[in-house]
Amino acid sequence: MTNTSAEAFAPATMANLGVGFDVLGLAFHEPGDVVRAELTDEPGVTIADIEGDGGQLTRDPEKNTAGIAAASTLKRLGVNQGVRLTIRKNLPLASGLGSSSASAVAAAVAVNALFGDTLSMKELLDPSLDGEAAVSGRHADNVAPCLFGGITLVTGVDANEIKMLPIPPSLHLALITPNVAVQTAVARAVLPQSIPLKTMVLQTAYMARLIDAIYRGDLSEMARAMEGDQVIEPARAHLMPLLYEMRQIAKSNGAFGLVISGAGPTLCAICNDEKIAQRVAQAMQAGYDAAGIESATRCTGISTSGAHVLRVN
Amino acid sequence: MTNTSAEAFAPATMANLGVGFDVLGLAFHEPGDVVRAELTDEPGVTIADIEGDGGQLTRDPEKNTAGIAAASTLKRLGVNQGVRLTIRKNLPLASGLGSSSASAVAAAVAVNALFGDTLSMKELLDPSLDGEAAVSGRHADNVAPCLFGGITLVTGVDANEIKMLPIPPSLHLALITPNVAVQTAVARAVLPQSIPLKTMVLQTAYMARLIDAIYRGDLSEMARAMEGDQVIEPARAHLMPLLYEMRQIAKSNGAFGLVISGAGPTLCAICNDEKIAQRVAQAMQAGYDAAGIESATRCTGISTSGAHVLRVN
Repeated sequence: MTNTSAEAFAPATMANLGVGFDVLGLAFHEPGDVVRAELTDEPGVTIADIEGDGGQLTRDPEKNTAGIAAASTLKRLGVNQGVRLTIRKNLPLASGLGSSSASAVAAAVAVNALFGDTLSMKELLDPSLDGEAAVSGRHADNVAPCLFGGITLVTGVDANEIKMLPIPPSLHLALITPNVAVQTAVARAVLPQSIPLKTMVLQTAYMARLIDAIYRGDLSEMARAMEGDQVIEPARAHLMPLLYEMRQIAKSNGAFGLVISGAGPTLCAICNDEKIAQRVAQAMQAGYDAAGIESATRCTGISTSGAHVLRVN
Repeated sequence: MTNTSAEAFAPATMANLGVGFDVLGLAFHEPGDVVRAELTDEPGVTIADIEGDGGQLTRDPEKNTAGIAAASTLKRLGVNQGVRLTIRKNLPLASGLGSSSASAVAAAVAVNALFGDTLSMKELLDPSLDGEAAVSGRHADNVAPCLFGGITLVTGVDANEIKMLPIPPSLHLALITPNVAVQTAVARAVLPQSIPLKTMVLQTAYMARLIDAIYRGDLSEMARAMEGDQVIEPARAHLMPLLYEMRQIAKSNGAFGLVISGAGPTLCAICNDEKIAQRVAQAMQAGYDAAGIESATRCTGISTSGAHVLRVN
């Protein structure tokens, strides 16, 4: 069953969760990218329009993350028709919110819906990774939570290497994105190449505490464990304006803790209440305002379902 | 309320659980050391006898792990009387089964029972660590499971830095101790001083998988994650005779996996059934026999309660 158009939503995601570098990720309830796929008779993928990217993203379907994911989905579906994509970016680029993953996943889900939803979400992992790989490397720490929702433990790029962790009830997040770009490649380049054994032991200990806290729904311990990272944050801190000041502000306004979202510069504060999250976001923004740094805030929760189809015609 | 004698049992323990180096530990149901404390009018600690150590352990109460733990417990109790200890070693020394912890913990529990059990198990952590410190350094990865039982996540030496993890039902363990001694100091000396970042990420990923598997009661995944250790086992493998052969034998007889217990040389196979554990133990022993290496086996489960008082008079 083939339709004429389909639209899908894919959420923003946070990789790393502090100490869970390259292993853990979670999906936010919002914001997210929306991709519309329209049926065309000509095989292949074209990009009709991209909204909200300020003209920064390539319209070349062979280079655009959504375009590549769409082409890979078409190939896996084995159809001869083509699609024309319209991409609505609601995520800021290079901000640590999984922007490229969201576009890739939304495109894969939309194209699959267009052709009758014959592939499972698990089967969309590969095409989504194809899109992500064009921009950020073939890694599932954003793609997996974006597709499946929730909090994910990612130990590889196969669907059976992705595990869903429980979602602590009452988890609310305050996000703030200062108006500075952090390229993932730069954020990778500043990392140390080797780690003292003692530090590795601490890192594994905090990781164990984090998974334990997630299972017990203990937000306070969860935030403490996330912040336990001894390796990644210290190396990247200088790329994030006012990181430690923001942590201080977040905590003094009721947050349990604060970590860098993905490779930054978005910061994510862990809260247990919507009102507290709003207060924390406002206070952080006031801090950036005082320093003359523009910023955008968002308070949200965890997406339990991940990417999904919005409509099919 | 003071008694005339008290006897306590403290179980063998396994530190590390593979990838959980210096962080995780568990208590076996058996074997364990038994310490009897008798009231004396003279303050201080004397050691009446040690059975089962082949004369290897010091009888000097100020150097013996049980003697030190007993003295520290007396001090914390604030009593002026003394104790005479009789130590029955049922654990082989320097075998990776937490022998020094078991003697220290049994002594602390026995002395506390002698004087009316006024200290809590948590309060016995410090005196037990004092005893352990004399032999193995002040670290709770064996002492904590020995005192409290179960599977412990140890991130420090304070009671509030020790967390109890759930115990997967149907966990059965096959232990085999080849007749070679591995000194903890030697096993520490062979470890690398620094680790590549990539390896650290793998190590934290396996740790996350292990805690997740423990919570889900997934023994197969638990064993796989334990074996994921990229750092400690490769460095120590040469100290453990036939390590990889034993893993192969264990798995081909139905075990999910095998790791070094503590600093070795005891090896521990993860099974889900008592009969399988027995078959695995026999097969491993036959393997050592064929290589002309003496060994001792034991099949056991997890101690849920840890150290405990056997009798008070």
